[in-house]
Amino acid sequence: MQLGLSFSDSDVSSFTPLVVLELADDTKAEAITWLLNRIRDKQQNGGAELLVNQLLFPAQDDQKSNPNVFVVGSTLQRLLNGAEDVGLFKEFQDGTMRGFTYANRESFKDFNGDGEGFLSDAECQYIIKHGLDTLRAKNEQHVPGYPKLKLYPGKSVVRRLQSKGVLIQYFPLHNKEDLKRLSFSWYKKFKLSFQPLDDIRHYFGEGLALYFGFLEYFTFALVPMALIGIPYYLFDWEDYDKYVLFAVFNLVWSTVFLEVWKRCSATLAYGWGTLSRKKAFEEPRAGFHGALGFNPVTGREEPVYPSSKRQLRIYLVSVPFVLLCLYLSFYVMMVYFDMEFWAINTYHENPNIATSILLFVPSIIYAVVIEIMNLLYRCAAEFLTDWENHRLESSFQNHLVLKVLVFNFVNCFASLFYIAFVMQNMVLLRQSLATLLITSQILNQVMEAFLPYWLQRRRNKKVHKRMRRLMGDKELPLLGQVQLETEMNTYLGTFDDYLEQFLLFGYVSLFSCVYPLAAVLVVLNNITEVYSDAFKMCHVFKRPFSEPAANIGVWQLAFETMSIIAVVTNCALIGLSPQVKAYFPESDTQLILIVVAIEHVLLAFKFILAFVIPDVPKHIQVKLAKLDFDSLEALKKRKILEATET
Amino acid sequence: MQLGLSFSDSDVSSFTPLVVLELADDTKAEAITWLLNRIRDKQQNGGAELLVNQLLFPAQDDQKSNPNVFVVGSTLQRLLNGAEDVGLFKEFQDGTMRGFTYANRESFKDFNGDGEGFLSDAECQYIIKHGLDTLRAKNEQHVPGYPKLKLYPGKSVVRRLQSKGVLIQYFPLHNKEDLKRLSFSWYKKFKLSFQPLDDIRHYFGEGLALYFGFLEYFTFALVPMALIGIPYYLFDWEDYDKYVLFAVFNLVWSTVFLEVWKRCSATLAYGWGTLSRKKAFEEPRAGFHGALGFNPVTGREEPVYPSSKRQLRIYLVSVPFVLLCLYLSFYVMMVYFDMEFWAINTYHENPNIATSILLFVPSIIYAVVIEIMNLLYRCAAEFLTDWENHRLESSFQNHLVLKVLVFNFVNCFASLFYIAFVMQNMVLLRQSLATLLITSQILNQVMEAFLPYWLQRRRNKKVHKRMRRLMGDKELPLLGQVQLETEMNTYLGTFDDYLEQFLLFGYVSLFSCVYPLAAVLVVLNNITEVYSDAFKMCHVFKRPFSEPAANIGVWQLAFETMSIIAVVTNCALIGLSPQVKAYFPESDTQLILIVVAIEHVLLAFKFILAFVIPDVPKHIQVKLAKLDFDSLEALKKRKILEATET
Repeated sequence: MQLGLSFSDSDVSSFTPLVVLELADDTKAEAITWLLNRIRDKQQNGGAELLVNQLLFPAQDDQKSNPNVFVVGSTLQRLLNGAEDVGLFKEFQDGTMRGFTYANRESFKDFNGDGEGFLSDAECQYIIKHGLDTLRAKNEQHVPGYPKLKLYPGKSVVRRLQSKGVLIQYFPLHNKEDLKRLSFSWYKKFKLSFQPLDDIRHYFGEGLALYFGFLEYFTFALVPMALIGIPYYLFDWEDYDKYVLFAVFNLVWSTVFLEVWKRCSATLAYGWGTLSRKKAFEEPRAGFHGALGFNPVTGREEPVYPSSKRQLRIYLVSVPFVLLCLYLSFYVMMVYFDMEFWAINTYHENPNIATSILLFVPSIIYAVVIEIMNLLYRCAAEFLTDWENHRLESSFQNHLVLKVLVFNFVNCFASLFYIAFVMQNMVLLRQSLATLLITSQILNQVMEAFLPYWLQRRRNKKVHKRMRRLMGDKELPLLGQVQLETEMNTYLGTFDDYLEQFLLFGYVSLFSCVYPLAAVLVVLNNITEVYSDAFKMCHVFKRPFSEPAANIGVWQLAFETMSIIAVVTNCALIGLSPQVKAYFPESDTQLILIVVAIEHVLLAFKFILAFVIPDVPKHIQVKLAKLDFDSLEALKKRKILEATET
Repeated sequence: MQLGLSFSDSDVSSFTPLVVLELADDTKAEAITWLLNRIRDKQQNGGAELLVNQLLFPAQDDQKSNPNVFVVGSTLQRLLNGAEDVGLFKEFQDGTMRGFTYANRESFKDFNGDGEGFLSDAECQYIIKHGLDTLRAKNEQHVPGYPKLKLYPGKSVVRRLQSKGVLIQYFPLHNKEDLKRLSFSWYKKFKLSFQPLDDIRHYFGEGLALYFGFLEYFTFALVPMALIGIPYYLFDWEDYDKYVLFAVFNLVWSTVFLEVWKRCSATLAYGWGTLSRKKAFEEPRAGFHGALGFNPVTGREEPVYPSSKRQLRIYLVSVPFVLLCLYLSFYVMMVYFDMEFWAINTYHENPNIATSILLFVPSIIYAVVIEIMNLLYRCAAEFLTDWENHRLESSFQNHLVLKVLVFNFVNCFASLFYIAFVMQNMVLLRQSLATLLITSQILNQVMEAFLPYWLQRRRNKKVHKRMRRLMGDKELPLLGQVQLETEMNTYLGTFDDYLEQFLLFGYVSLFSCVYPLAAVLVVLNNITEVYSDAFKMCHVFKRPFSEPAANIGVWQLAFETMSIIAVVTNCALIGLSPQVKAYFPESDTQLILIVVAIEHVLLAFKFILAFVIPDVPKHIQVKLAKLDFDSLEALKKRKILEATET
């Protein structure tokens, strides 16, 4: 057994393990052999040309460890070639970002010697993932040993194994030293400073770094609003002009905020080389199924699913389901109002401390119920969207985001709209807003960070104990690490994090002129959010594969839509305020017309502003144009050279 | 003299003359020699590698003809290489559109033999223009013979000569046979059929063909509205529900109309190979000037003009000027209203035929004044935008379009808005709208087609007479044709044509629910417009260089903005109508709130609709994806090939 142990460890150490591959423990031996051969085979022969080894656990392990765990690595040469394949952009000698090519490798800024250290860990892991994902079936009819696991030429092997449960998971390994350094500079020292976005991007990739960049930017952008909001709250400034002033500030702020973010994100993405990177050809999702047909784009034989069938599923099942859920949400809202009135009546009948506390109870219960409903709905939406059988991950994501956004928006804000515009009770609105905001913040922090952390700690302890029992005090870094990380939860992407920020943005922008303190609460929440999110990424979840991203995608649109709705609600709230109404004692008509006119002007102003502010800063535009120009010139030169040669 | 004549003609006939180049008649001989050498020089040496010859006029010409007229042609080989340089897309064997490359020429669909007839005349002329435009100075300090005409390496020679008046003009020659065929199929046979867009594109290029495509599409799209409008007008349907119905139809129509046009335009542009064509690197405008500096993109020395100076000119001069013009326009409007009231009073004091005719006089005068003001303003705007010294033609165009659109919109529609919402006089609105629309249509047709046609006829006769006197009955096709076309007016681009359609669209969409007959009038106008525009392109103006275009550019945005304004005005008009007001006898408040709510819903619906309808039809998307995929695959194959070779 000592042999097996040392064998596995010495064998593995012949290359740096970067990615872990876990197959089901009852996988047939011939399938494993076939898969490993395909992974190791040369690229000319259609293999992935990667290094892969089985991880052997000590035999005396009493708890059954899965024996089919593999670590994957790669030679440097393969990684550099892979960097060109995936279209990585790196910094050139002249400071611009250019598509990396192996032939020109010496002209890139940080390329020294044989290129060791040129690619970050995350990039290497991304390249390996791409290599595994694009490992395609050749002439195999099915996976060896599994006659039912059909294959056809060009089908991604990994996707097929994954969708049939043979491949349980594959994930990148943490790099303990880098992680220690990152977590120190990120959240361990309590000081006022920006987050180390470049380091985060190095370790976790662009998608996640952009989220943290957005979180930081959003929080900073809220500070002026919070600073203005505090005196409004403290001194009860509710005069007409101050009110309007705050709302106008709010509106300009939300527009400028989103426009400037686009520029920031473009600057970040340019520096990270994702701005001008071409999107790779998208593979079908792992779960996508259909009858064998011909892909009109590639001309290859592959499953196709008629889009008319998908449309039927969407319009006949998904849409009615969403509407039903919205109805349910309204129903719950009505129950909440009943509770609210009961509480108010109780308080009025017998005003004491107990009943005054009781006043807040319905809101708190409602906030908790909202969170639970959001959670349940999220699962249902994911199931439904999966069932709609979208071919591409991007289309799946768009449909999921749309479903979830609509429901979350209605679920969270319907009661506030009802209180504001139907009941027109500003005191209740303020109280309800505060309770909802605070409760949901607390719940979120608990659900998102503390709970997983606590579960993770328990798991860690168990694994450590087992490892110690197995090997005494001997250190077995790799085995232990793999064992630990295999059991960690998988980070499901930035979806929930963005969703939370989206809802917070809604609380701030929709009703802020009624409750100016909202911005303060959101700022406080986001400061702790940075720490808890950073902590959960570093220690609670598996390391995620880096996700190249040039912007925050569909969320930009979501935030912009919210800011348009915010203009409408803020104008309406101003029109409803008694101070404003007092200015037009004779007729409501005039007041309404003026409010509507102002609203239209503000909306027009907003669109003009969004149009006038360029999405990409001037200096980045110049760099991009330079790149285009240079490649055009190079093409011309090559052509003239070819012409003179012939 | 006979010698000189035949020499010129025989010499010219050694190649097909495609483009005419006219230099000032006092151009120094050394400059001419230098320019011709540069044009004839090989591309490797930085020349344009084109064929060029002087056109010699008979010596006995009593009227002084400009002797410095040259015709330019090209070898087939040069044209095919040029097609690759300008990035022309042609139909491939498999029916997709691909960037033409000389190496793969045999794989393109219509390429037979040596490629004769593969490129259309318009394409050849575009390639020659590109060759001339990109003829750059090498080490010359100045144009020979003109020490003040400074040059620097990389400066476009043609642009420099043009901006200093040495090069008077260069334009493509008409092809008489093609023109005859085109004009026959286009407008000579009176029948109900679509325009031959492909032929138009072949002869005039994509930009113009898209305009005619849009004109046709717009006219057809108006037909249902016109058909619905007629009964509304005839039977005075002014009930609430019918009114609202018409407005809603109007709104959905205008949104769908613009969205579907995007798809049509994408389909057309794909078929013409301009959809995926990369934009060429834009040269500075001919008139652009500045201190010598370094271009940050190309790194070359060239004039630069600080954008802060330009901003100052825009905000301190142009914007105040536009505001002043708007004020003037309002002033004229007020004078019109005075006239209108005077006319109405006169009629009421003494109602007879003369005074009832008098009722229409103020509107007609006002319409004429509006047209004159638009014309004057147009000149001023062009002068101002030129003075703002924009570096690129596209930026110049955008600023010009913005200036002209704002003024034209206010100038044409201000009085209607005033009548509708301040005076709330629907009868006057209807009458005013009708008069404005009809008068401006008549004026436009006269100004645009008949006047230039008449001037052109006179000129034609003069030239013909001179030619006959010179050569008796002998035919001298080329000399005569060049002589004739040199003196034709230059077509200034589609700007004015689109502007006219934009204003017509405004009349139809803004107030159509008050005057449903507007659509009928516009349809009638546009049918004659097709004929008069076609005629003017074929016989009144010089042939324009073809302009590759993938869409109608900034006009799409302009039309969309108009359709948004249309939603607002239509909703407001419905709210104002007495029939609707009768439904809410007690309070205006409720009515206004409902109208505003409906307006918001309609606007939201409009945005969702615009978002949901994809801009590019599915089958074009598939073709584009296929192209991407194929080039990616080719790249991969090349790489594997290279890898196996080494």
